[in-house]
Amino acid sequence: MNLAHLSDLDIANQSTLKPIGEIAEKAGIPAEALEPYGHYKAKIDINQVQQQNGKGKVVLVTAMSPTPAGEGKSTVTVGLADAFNQLKKNVMVALREPALGPTFGIKGGATGGGYAQVLPMEDINLHFNGDFHAITTANNALSAFIDNHIHQGNELEIDQRRIEWKRVLDMNDRALRNVIVGLGGPTQGVPREDGFNITVASEIMAILCLANDIKDLKEKISKITIGYTRSHKPVTVADLKVEGALAMILKDAIKPNLVQTIEGTPALVHGGPFANIAHGCNSILATETARDLSDIVVTEAGFGSDLGAEKFIDIKAREAGFEPSAVVVVATIRALKMHGGVAKDNLKEENVEALKQGIVNLERHVKNVKKYGLEPVVALNAFVHDTDAETEFVQQWAKDNGVRLALTEVWEKGGKGGIDLANEVLEVIEQPQTFKHLYELEQPLEDKIETIVKEIYGGAKVTFSSKAQKQLNQFKDNGWDHYPICMAKTQYSFTDDATQLGAPEGFEITIRELEAKTGAGFIVALTGAIMTMPGLPKKPAALNMDVTDDGHAVGLF
Amino acid sequence: MNLAHLSDLDIANQSTLKPIGEIAEKAGIPAEALEPYGHYKAKIDINQVQQQNGKGKVVLVTAMSPTPAGEGKSTVTVGLADAFNQLKKNVMVALREPALGPTFGIKGGATGGGYAQVLPMEDINLHFNGDFHAITTANNALSAFIDNHIHQGNELEIDQRRIEWKRVLDMNDRALRNVIVGLGGPTQGVPREDGFNITVASEIMAILCLANDIKDLKEKISKITIGYTRSHKPVTVADLKVEGALAMILKDAIKPNLVQTIEGTPALVHGGPFANIAHGCNSILATETARDLSDIVVTEAGFGSDLGAEKFIDIKAREAGFEPSAVVVVATIRALKMHGGVAKDNLKEENVEALKQGIVNLERHVKNVKKYGLEPVVALNAFVHDTDAETEFVQQWAKDNGVRLALTEVWEKGGKGGIDLANEVLEVIEQPQTFKHLYELEQPLEDKIETIVKEIYGGAKVTFSSKAQKQLNQFKDNGWDHYPICMAKTQYSFTDDATQLGAPEGFEITIRELEAKTGAGFIVALTGAIMTMPGLPKKPAALNMDVTDDGHAVGLF
Repeated sequence: MNLAHLSDLDIANQSTLKPIGEIAEKAGIPAEALEPYGHYKAKIDINQVQQQNGKGKVVLVTAMSPTPAGEGKSTVTVGLADAFNQLKKNVMVALREPALGPTFGIKGGATGGGYAQVLPMEDINLHFNGDFHAITTANNALSAFIDNHIHQGNELEIDQRRIEWKRVLDMNDRALRNVIVGLGGPTQGVPREDGFNITVASEIMAILCLANDIKDLKEKISKITIGYTRSHKPVTVADLKVEGALAMILKDAIKPNLVQTIEGTPALVHGGPFANIAHGCNSILATETARDLSDIVVTEAGFGSDLGAEKFIDIKAREAGFEPSAVVVVATIRALKMHGGVAKDNLKEENVEALKQGIVNLERHVKNVKKYGLEPVVALNAFVHDTDAETEFVQQWAKDNGVRLALTEVWEKGGKGGIDLANEVLEVIEQPQTFKHLYELEQPLEDKIETIVKEIYGGAKVTFSSKAQKQLNQFKDNGWDHYPICMAKTQYSFTDDATQLGAPEGFEITIRELEAKTGAGFIVALTGAIMTMPGLPKKPAALNMDVTDDGHAVGLF
Repeated sequence: MNLAHLSDLDIANQSTLKPIGEIAEKAGIPAEALEPYGHYKAKIDINQVQQQNGKGKVVLVTAMSPTPAGEGKSTVTVGLADAFNQLKKNVMVALREPALGPTFGIKGGATGGGYAQVLPMEDINLHFNGDFHAITTANNALSAFIDNHIHQGNELEIDQRRIEWKRVLDMNDRALRNVIVGLGGPTQGVPREDGFNITVASEIMAILCLANDIKDLKEKISKITIGYTRSHKPVTVADLKVEGALAMILKDAIKPNLVQTIEGTPALVHGGPFANIAHGCNSILATETARDLSDIVVTEAGFGSDLGAEKFIDIKAREAGFEPSAVVVVATIRALKMHGGVAKDNLKEENVEALKQGIVNLERHVKNVKKYGLEPVVALNAFVHDTDAETEFVQQWAKDNGVRLALTEVWEKGGKGGIDLANEVLEVIEQPQTFKHLYELEQPLEDKIETIVKEIYGGAKVTFSSKAQKQLNQFKDNGWDHYPICMAKTQYSFTDDATQLGAPEGFEITIRELEAKTGAGFIVALTGAIMTMPGLPKKPAALNMDVTDDGHAVGLF
């Protein structure tokens, strides 16, 4: 069989799915906790799930600095879980949900690839179980409540020029980035500037993913800062008294979604916050539910170790109160060569020299993981054009530097292609480790930012714009100094300049602006312009999409 | 038991729901066609449903001109189906889905009341099975495709001042009625005026409800007129080549939703277009699926016989190709008294004089049903403050005028309270009738409008504004003369003035404007300003909403 002729969708369609009840049984989910959505998806009523044999251990999959070539982090995450499954371990995989809007722009999904996928990919990439729609609804209900409050007399004296809360849609729609609402005269609301973000950028998404239960969800929602009065006093959802209504809208969205991998490993796919202006991990509830049900939970975080893994550990794991037991760093020959200066079009040619140049990027990611007191495991994710000399170079580098490394071939072989990686991870899990966070919450905001920039990015200095400096003072006055930091930085470089590949040193990072996400519970530090509402290309993928007469999606991938 | 102390939600919560698989079995739905959504809801894969004993007969429930007192049309619809169920008839009920947005404004649902409800009401009134979210997504994807087309060079030469297609949200949000999008400079789209409607006003909603299958859905979507060029040439979805993508978004939304009544009668709740700017009935697919599965299908249409029933017959039934077998006209003592001049606050006092004045409204609705060659059955829906003298007056009026009438007490007694009504309907179904439409499609648009105004409303004359006159000519030039008419008129009066109750005569109706819904396949004739995006009140119902720690909605009703 020539794999090169099979698309991810072909492979997915050739797979025989097990009924979701069977997957639930395998995962130890009681029948009364299972709420099926069709034959192959379900939501889990977390109130009916009992902890089994103590809490499972968490294996985080992160990566070197991503490149446009793609490193296959989700694929390795799924494949590693399938490998544990083949080794008869009690394992679950916990992933993020993909956004719907971007699929109309550029072909592609986010459910792994080859023989390491979660299924049914068609449903997961479309409306799935409605979570993102519920988040969109809650976000926009809050906007409607804000505008209605102002229209009805503005008792809270909200300054309509200082409303931070934006509307959202799960859509790539540049025309909605900057809008004026409330036009048409005195019966049609109060005119003001507004804008739409894509739903994954909603603070409600971040909150849903950081909530420990529905009560906590409501409490976090109540703390959202929607804007300020003319005298700069923060106005919260609690002031508007709508946290109950907003939490009610999310009562089903908060339940983790159960699906399966091609090899029948139970998978929880739940939540999908941005990895730049938010923390980029699946929900705490999914991870914790998986920990209740299994001995090992394989999960991932967005982008490289500088962004996703740092936030996973310092925001998500801290909030949930668990420690990761192992961290896998996904690397590819292709990405290492790009970090060594090779252009995307020339990646098929053997180039050990470029590898030597680019390996510094992986080196820094490996070093980063060690800062948390954890021993990293590099997953060298094989691609068809890798040459033996190239693979041997990376393997030798690992040997020389005492770095655990395993070649993974999960795209082509599924779990079987990840057995070596699984065995390396098992050794790390068993050995004693001294986990620690990168920073303590009590440190001032500037200190926390400086720690991330110097320790993780390898930078020399942090500069704050005058706006950011002013905000630092305001945030301290508001009592927001204790929040963790969520850095918004390009994923392609350790610096704030996407073109600086490899492992630059001695650079300066400029914090242009801060955003207070007092509901989610973090302060976003923006190092550049971050796009929170994508646009469509000239020829959107939608032009090739269709549905068959019996209701199957065409052209989704 | 004192019923007055029980809310609809109390009664719903006291009911024991049967697993949806049991309801499906009772309805004759094969297991492979059933896609469960949780324990008590499902979608039905219509490709897997076989027609059983020929097509079932359709019983339409309509009403006299509605009043703010509420007539309980959905309640009678559900109760009548339960009555047939008690009579051991093979019956299903087919209803519209309620919109989510308005629940945040004013307390209340749309799933019947008392002991005649469809369940689970909490879910049906919130996200249900995601249909409205899918419609919102498809509608707004089309907007994004339009704005992207213009931004990328506007090959189709769409005049951005003449775009008819609006964005939608399932939200009461007046600030979105009139907006400007595309601000922010050349990389952020092209500025233009736009606005948001509530999702139920989307033409995609009307199309979903008038589609005969998924192929037809796609074809109807392709015919939507999104706007015009500078030379007034219509631009359609087919020109943008995105009908496949839009139909794909709706591939699950098009499947009817199965739920149950309190008494376990199978219910299909699917689709919910506006009853003014659209046709106000549940989907053809739900009605036809119910006809495949059962001998009797009880269904309803929005507002009174002048609006909902007229559109049900002349738009929906014509498109689907069936004939209704009986029409029930719901009336109440309260509503008759209001049409006789009594104010809402004085309805509790006995007032036979006002009844004598107001009965003319019911008389005209009864006459309207006869125009279609059908014998109407009046359901006098009992309320607690009705006096014996009042009830006897209406019963005597029916006797004197040879009108079939049955007193219904379904709110208090469920199906048992509708047995008399069911028996009257059964007699009508059995007798020979000569069904005919009100008008033929070949008549010119003006003729069709005039026929509705004179025959159904009892008006004397139709005047077209100069704008409407111009549009009539343009629509003829565009080849749109053969479409049926969808009248947008106040539901409270036969005239275009909401304060003219009873049965006015000799009045004039002014058509201010036309809208071409070439996808749904009808021409909307607007007789006044129709609100397509509601606002929130000063104290929205959301303020009293909450969710319990174990995930149950509070304050939804």
